[in-house]
Amino acid sequence: MYKINDNYLKLPGSYLFSTIGKKVNAFATANPDKKIIRLGIGDVTLPLAPAVIDAFHKAVDEMAVKETFMGYAPDLGYEFLRSAIAKNDFEARGVKIDIDEIFVSDGAKSDSGNIGDIFSVDNKIAVCDPVYPVYVDTNAMAGRTGVFDAATERWTNVIYMPCTAETNFAPELPAETPDIIYLCFPNNPTGATINKDELQKWVDYANKVGAVIIYDAAYEAYISEDDVPHTIYECKDAKGCAIEIRSFSKNAGFTGTRLGYTVVPKELKCGDVSLNSLWARRHGTKFNGAPYITQRAGEAVYSPEGKKQTAEQVAYYMNNAKVIKNGLESAGYTVSGGVNAPYIWLKTPNNMTSWQFFDYLLEELNIVGTPGSGFGPSGEGYFRLTAFGTYENTLEAIERIKNA
Amino acid sequence: MYKINDNYLKLPGSYLFSTIGKKVNAFATANPDKKIIRLGIGDVTLPLAPAVIDAFHKAVDEMAVKETFMGYAPDLGYEFLRSAIAKNDFEARGVKIDIDEIFVSDGAKSDSGNIGDIFSVDNKIAVCDPVYPVYVDTNAMAGRTGVFDAATERWTNVIYMPCTAETNFAPELPAETPDIIYLCFPNNPTGATINKDELQKWVDYANKVGAVIIYDAAYEAYISEDDVPHTIYECKDAKGCAIEIRSFSKNAGFTGTRLGYTVVPKELKCGDVSLNSLWARRHGTKFNGAPYITQRAGEAVYSPEGKKQTAEQVAYYMNNAKVIKNGLESAGYTVSGGVNAPYIWLKTPNNMTSWQFFDYLLEELNIVGTPGSGFGPSGEGYFRLTAFGTYENTLEAIERIKNA
Repeated sequence: MYKINDNYLKLPGSYLFSTIGKKVNAFATANPDKKIIRLGIGDVTLPLAPAVIDAFHKAVDEMAVKETFMGYAPDLGYEFLRSAIAKNDFEARGVKIDIDEIFVSDGAKSDSGNIGDIFSVDNKIAVCDPVYPVYVDTNAMAGRTGVFDAATERWTNVIYMPCTAETNFAPELPAETPDIIYLCFPNNPTGATINKDELQKWVDYANKVGAVIIYDAAYEAYISEDDVPHTIYECKDAKGCAIEIRSFSKNAGFTGTRLGYTVVPKELKCGDVSLNSLWARRHGTKFNGAPYITQRAGEAVYSPEGKKQTAEQVAYYMNNAKVIKNGLESAGYTVSGGVNAPYIWLKTPNNMTSWQFFDYLLEELNIVGTPGSGFGPSGEGYFRLTAFGTYENTLEAIERIKNA
Repeated sequence: MYKINDNYLKLPGSYLFSTIGKKVNAFATANPDKKIIRLGIGDVTLPLAPAVIDAFHKAVDEMAVKETFMGYAPDLGYEFLRSAIAKNDFEARGVKIDIDEIFVSDGAKSDSGNIGDIFSVDNKIAVCDPVYPVYVDTNAMAGRTGVFDAATERWTNVIYMPCTAETNFAPELPAETPDIIYLCFPNNPTGATINKDELQKWVDYANKVGAVIIYDAAYEAYISEDDVPHTIYECKDAKGCAIEIRSFSKNAGFTGTRLGYTVVPKELKCGDVSLNSLWARRHGTKFNGAPYITQRAGEAVYSPEGKKQTAEQVAYYMNNAKVIKNGLESAGYTVSGGVNAPYIWLKTPNNMTSWQFFDYLLEELNIVGTPGSGFGPSGEGYFRLTAFGTYENTLEAIERIKNA
């Protein structure tokens, strides 16, 4: 008799956003007259930029003609896109990344889950607490996290790095030495960032203890302050210890379009083994390339018009972030994030739990947010609102909260 | 110090098609004046059907407008596509598949690699020999295959089911009981099929011994004979033991567009555990949905125009298959496949090894094919040609072979 991967059975409940979705659907069905404003899931609302739309149409037309039709894409992605990435996301920041260090994919969620494939099950991971659930859940599925202890709401074999108000929601170097460290800056869910000197400490630490950093920079486009690094490779010797994951979802609205990439530097080695080669093998064996038309659309994000148009989208969302942050502060809330990230992290009022506040917002004010405790035990008593709604809805939501 | 997944180090050489690609590139660079005809990799050459192109343009236009813009897709895929699949691929064949048993993805290669995630490492797999390398390589990466024995060219912990001329290139029930059985019909690489009664024997066997069948039906559209099943669920009780993987790559030319789906029936259970739930969890945690525009394009494949246009494409390729099969036979080759599949499987002449014949075809006739031994030891002495070239190139390639 075949056996299942029973690590799946250790996962507590369902994926956070599925649970939220079910709650919201149930409320909406029971209350069809209520206008629900969704500031929960980090999904964008602005349409794709005109430059991206044009590139899509052009590429679709190429697919309609024998002479320009494109079959299987190269495993790593088309050179035109990887060159644009190398030039705009790295060279422009003074960082040299070769195009064969860039692996184009269908998105950062897939990559941050799949990257675990190339590591042994016998690695101990360290994650921020609170944290994007995908890092922990995918490691749990792989059998790397021990068992889930319902009492502490923690996995027994994971190093948690609490990110609390006391540390400005940044992690501190862990007491126990991890093998794999997940970092995400600007942070989801807290919106926190660290400056270059602080990130350098993590790089130095990883190089010293022989850990690898999985650096999720999906929100890089939202950085507004000068001393916040846009890529971990701005730090000295980061190529020896860090993998960076990037997304087109938040800077260019590709959540429903799917495109991302991962950088695995060639000098990143475990003994003699190049992680770049391992990921190339994984990519070539379990993935069949991102679609040609989507890679052309991604290329257009780096065109002069694409840059301008997507920067305007980011500015639009960051104005929402300001509306939320200022509005909540004037309503007496304790708020962080929202300056270098599209996420606002607020302390729930009156010592409500995160889910109590979720229910209150949904049922009383018809606003959907994300309970901080869904991201880890240190998120308890906190709540995440996103700036990805429309300006009008964002304003209305904040008015509802202020008037409550 | 972190540790890599050293199962990767057990993989012999690189992925078959990468090796071929490198050889062909080297030859092309050294011989820029030669016209190389590629009948190696199973990549299509016809442009996307007009109905698909129209659907793409329409969906791209929707993404350009706030009111119709689509963000994250539902984990399983949009209902419009899953309904079209349920109706056209199953109901039309007398098979009832619920839409929540259908998981839309970025393609059959990803799914056939990723499906292993939901099974324990302690399962023994059975594969046809020769076989599509992805099944074995992905299981090797997961640590399920033992070690590779260079002498026998076999993994020590895999049950191989030889598919030889004596068995019409169909596998026989294995002597040792497997946990997971990979079947692909119409077969890649041999082009062989089995009829419904024969497939029923596999279903009955799997149900009896408690094995699960991973059924790859990527080439279903190429079936021309009446008694060949289009889906494993045409067989009685198949929902209790089989997962089916489908692709839009070969029936609609989506190799560079990326769309596929996997059926995991709700009644497929390991003890009390529903595999449908496990795959839903995997899909929801490590994948973020197929793009909206691509799902609309996929839906168009099932429209009346889409069906007609893609059927014409299949007919075009099957005419190529006939050209290859008849041409090789008239040149004295021993040939199979090409009737219900776009693959022609030929015995190499003069006792050449598969790679010797590869080199001969590339260097002397400037034709690229795929060495049978690349698919497993029982493929030695065989060679695969695909019908996916243009008619003109296919004809020219066969003329070159006939005149050699």
